[in-house]
Amino acid sequence: MSEQAARKRTRGGGGAARRAERTAVVIETAKYIERNIPNFEILNEEALEIIETNAETVLAEIGVNFVNNPAALERWRNAGADVDGERVRIPRGLARQLCSTAPREFTQHARNPEKNVVIGGRNLVLAPVYGPPFVRDMNGGRRYATMDDFRKFVKLGYMSKWLHHSGGTVCEPTDIPVNKRHLDMLQAHMTLSDKPFMGSVTEPSRAQDSVEMCEILFGKQFVQDNTVMTSLINVNSPMTFDDVMMGAMEVYAENNQACILSPFIVGGAMAPVSVAGTLTQVLAEVLAGIAYNQLVRPGAPIIFGTFVTSIDMNSGAPTFGTPEASHILYGAGQLARRMNLPYRSGGGLCGSKLPDAQAAYETSNTLNAALMGGVNFMLHACGWLEGGLVSSFEKFVMDADQLGVLHHLARGVGVTEEDQAMGAIAEVGPGGHYLGCAHTQANFKSAFWRTNLLDYKPFETWEEEGARDTVTLAAKRVETLLNTYQQPELDPGIAEALDAYVATKKASMPDAFT
Amino acid sequence: MSEQAARKRTRGGGGAARRAERTAVVIETAKYIERNIPNFEILNEEALEIIETNAETVLAEIGVNFVNNPAALERWRNAGADVDGERVRIPRGLARQLCSTAPREFTQHARNPEKNVVIGGRNLVLAPVYGPPFVRDMNGGRRYATMDDFRKFVKLGYMSKWLHHSGGTVCEPTDIPVNKRHLDMLQAHMTLSDKPFMGSVTEPSRAQDSVEMCEILFGKQFVQDNTVMTSLINVNSPMTFDDVMMGAMEVYAENNQACILSPFIVGGAMAPVSVAGTLTQVLAEVLAGIAYNQLVRPGAPIIFGTFVTSIDMNSGAPTFGTPEASHILYGAGQLARRMNLPYRSGGGLCGSKLPDAQAAYETSNTLNAALMGGVNFMLHACGWLEGGLVSSFEKFVMDADQLGVLHHLARGVGVTEEDQAMGAIAEVGPGGHYLGCAHTQANFKSAFWRTNLLDYKPFETWEEEGARDTVTLAAKRVETLLNTYQQPELDPGIAEALDAYVATKKASMPDAFT
Repeated sequence: MSEQAARKRTRGGGGAARRAERTAVVIETAKYIERNIPNFEILNEEALEIIETNAETVLAEIGVNFVNNPAALERWRNAGADVDGERVRIPRGLARQLCSTAPREFTQHARNPEKNVVIGGRNLVLAPVYGPPFVRDMNGGRRYATMDDFRKFVKLGYMSKWLHHSGGTVCEPTDIPVNKRHLDMLQAHMTLSDKPFMGSVTEPSRAQDSVEMCEILFGKQFVQDNTVMTSLINVNSPMTFDDVMMGAMEVYAENNQACILSPFIVGGAMAPVSVAGTLTQVLAEVLAGIAYNQLVRPGAPIIFGTFVTSIDMNSGAPTFGTPEASHILYGAGQLARRMNLPYRSGGGLCGSKLPDAQAAYETSNTLNAALMGGVNFMLHACGWLEGGLVSSFEKFVMDADQLGVLHHLARGVGVTEEDQAMGAIAEVGPGGHYLGCAHTQANFKSAFWRTNLLDYKPFETWEEEGARDTVTLAAKRVETLLNTYQQPELDPGIAEALDAYVATKKASMPDAFT
Repeated sequence: MSEQAARKRTRGGGGAARRAERTAVVIETAKYIERNIPNFEILNEEALEIIETNAETVLAEIGVNFVNNPAALERWRNAGADVDGERVRIPRGLARQLCSTAPREFTQHARNPEKNVVIGGRNLVLAPVYGPPFVRDMNGGRRYATMDDFRKFVKLGYMSKWLHHSGGTVCEPTDIPVNKRHLDMLQAHMTLSDKPFMGSVTEPSRAQDSVEMCEILFGKQFVQDNTVMTSLINVNSPMTFDDVMMGAMEVYAENNQACILSPFIVGGAMAPVSVAGTLTQVLAEVLAGIAYNQLVRPGAPIIFGTFVTSIDMNSGAPTFGTPEASHILYGAGQLARRMNLPYRSGGGLCGSKLPDAQAAYETSNTLNAALMGGVNFMLHACGWLEGGLVSSFEKFVMDADQLGVLHHLARGVGVTEEDQAMGAIAEVGPGGHYLGCAHTQANFKSAFWRTNLLDYKPFETWEEEGARDTVTLAAKRVETLLNTYQQPELDPGIAEALDAYVATKKASMPDAFT
């Protein structure tokens, strides 16, 4: 073989290897964000103390309602609260004292231990959109969500590098009976992804099913010893804790599983029209809810949640990405940190009907505030559209790309000798350029965040390729991701046991659609 | 007249008055932002000191070039710098000491004194896009900008509530000779708007023309005693100060007019690929440039400018709204504040070709960082598209609407008794709602930021009205604003004098198109 032929052969082999590398699907997941930047603190000490004092006044003098829940009333009575019918008035300091047994951070385990997340401290864990009954994509428009859509979102979440968590109800699979869909949803998270996920909260019995399915996936003892679900418990604001949500939370607490205790507030409707008033109510509700959680099981992992929008006083519609929502996000973060609790807020929230500029302005406003405001768990980080009525396929990958911006922002600014680049500045000198210098060559690959989606092409190229907007590029990316999706391996015995559990449960109940 | 008829008549009159009110064009301009929120500080003391020390090393050991400017070299030599050819090496501490005569804030006067702006301190002044040779609108697409486009942008700026400043080259009027267009541009700002504006920097003689036109508008002595222009002086990074920009700056400084001394950096090309390295170079350049400005006239108003993007290492294109750009924006703000200088950075920067979701993500990332990072003067706050190649009519009004978000964010959180809303919380109680309560009724009008553009309508209404996206809504708003524009009053004698000045100047030169 001549030297030339050998070289050719080597090049051929190299080319084939490079092609194979390009073809292979690399599913990379970034570690949850560990912030190396300070939190933005909008409230001064005086404002914090006013709000904290007022929240105690609300609990002591106005109180909160625990509805249809005699066991909860009994727990409160025993703890020293004043129970009058369903109204619970909590003496000053008691709720905060009860909350103090909750951990300041906890690990939520994934079935792939590399994807465990630590929720709390200076970390930020990102989870996708939760709850919409509709989906939208560029070609199909807006329609009721199905289980097929749900599975697609779980696959997209699995393949999204900057998403740490598979989430929960990524959309409502409306083609499955209400009383059975939690089984299919959980099975999808457990089998189509290996990231951590959320449990069902729509009935206490469904929370119990969630625990049992986790016992199949992780082992019975593991579930009792470790947190494997973080589930969303909304407060019926103002200051009402209903038996369904509290019942689900009781199941999770008893099984050592985490909850997010979240006031769900449209400011001006479910809370006062002022930021300070809303923060007062949020804090009172969280204090009462988390105190109750700790009454059920001291030490149970729980997150200080806030979900706040304001109302458009013209139309009555909820709004997103507004300055008042950011104020509340920042303020509630400070209140959570003073309680040493993990904090949930933010997300890619928007009111727009389409994944257009409005959606992106509103989303970025909220994503940036959540990073700066010290959020530890961000639900709705990608895919949210139309005030949470719609899960958007394109917006899912658009937002997921922007989550990379948050990762890089959180790194902060390094000042090692390499970072200082004094050699490069001397080498290049006045009037030179840095593209070819040694420092640039050594560092350019990791120096800058790189998009997987956005367009940076020259105008002429972009025009020749069809002058595509962001949504068009995103639709293409959704298609590519779904076409190249490969299911993460799972022990066949576990997969079969999950199948059997779901089949048996489904067979035990008639279908219910309301 | 019966009581009923009288009531009817009154109602009729009231209705007519209300109709008249709706028809009248109310041109409201918000006061510049006075922040009531802290600045976000990303660098710790150690990092700041490293960067400051390194910048002094760059000036002392590498130096900067002042090109084709013997007078500048002479000034530097007299000030104690080491001048070697065109290279100026500045002993440690000298540049910073020279910079200390610059004012920490200054007032830029508008011809309508209500629209004067104070640049510096905790304020933020917002000015529109600057420099694009192209314009884009939804119907006409992308095309070379004309003077007619320029006038339209000035009118839109005049009518934009959240914009405090008319800006400068809102687009390049390519249909006017290069050597004459500054005259038309200035005349447009002076006559079509009453907000403050920027002067020409493309030749020292054009800076002189700008001063002379201001002397007509404001009076000769007023211009010498007061700042009536803030003009953009870019550094030719790395570390090169060309004679055109320096010549223009000399004219402005000699006439007590403000400049922004801005390194113009695409990170990885004109500065090191690291944030700390870029900040070092930015600081060195600003120190040298502002020191030179103060050598020309101690006490001349001047702004610490930063314009930094990073490069996409795949395509070589500049990128916007990236985390590294935000890091630099935050860091440079800290460096500026340590010099007690007003700070310019940020804007509605984006790389997208269309005013789509990419444009809005990138824009919001930058707008938010600029507010949090303590920027005092924000050029490109609205209308910027395609990396600054294009002024977009729709994006102008889209971004201008988002600037309202910054105003409300900057207000911070009030904790007056009214803000605390304890009465409302007690009145409404658990399970109630706040829409009808007295506190909501008293406060809802001013409580929340309200968009002039974005869609909050119910889905069905939105669909019936054509399922319009943000750009479509924006195109409609552009049309409405331009149709209802009314020129602010101007003394006819001044208007005629400006006409005569422009005509005489134009007649004195042959047309030049390069």
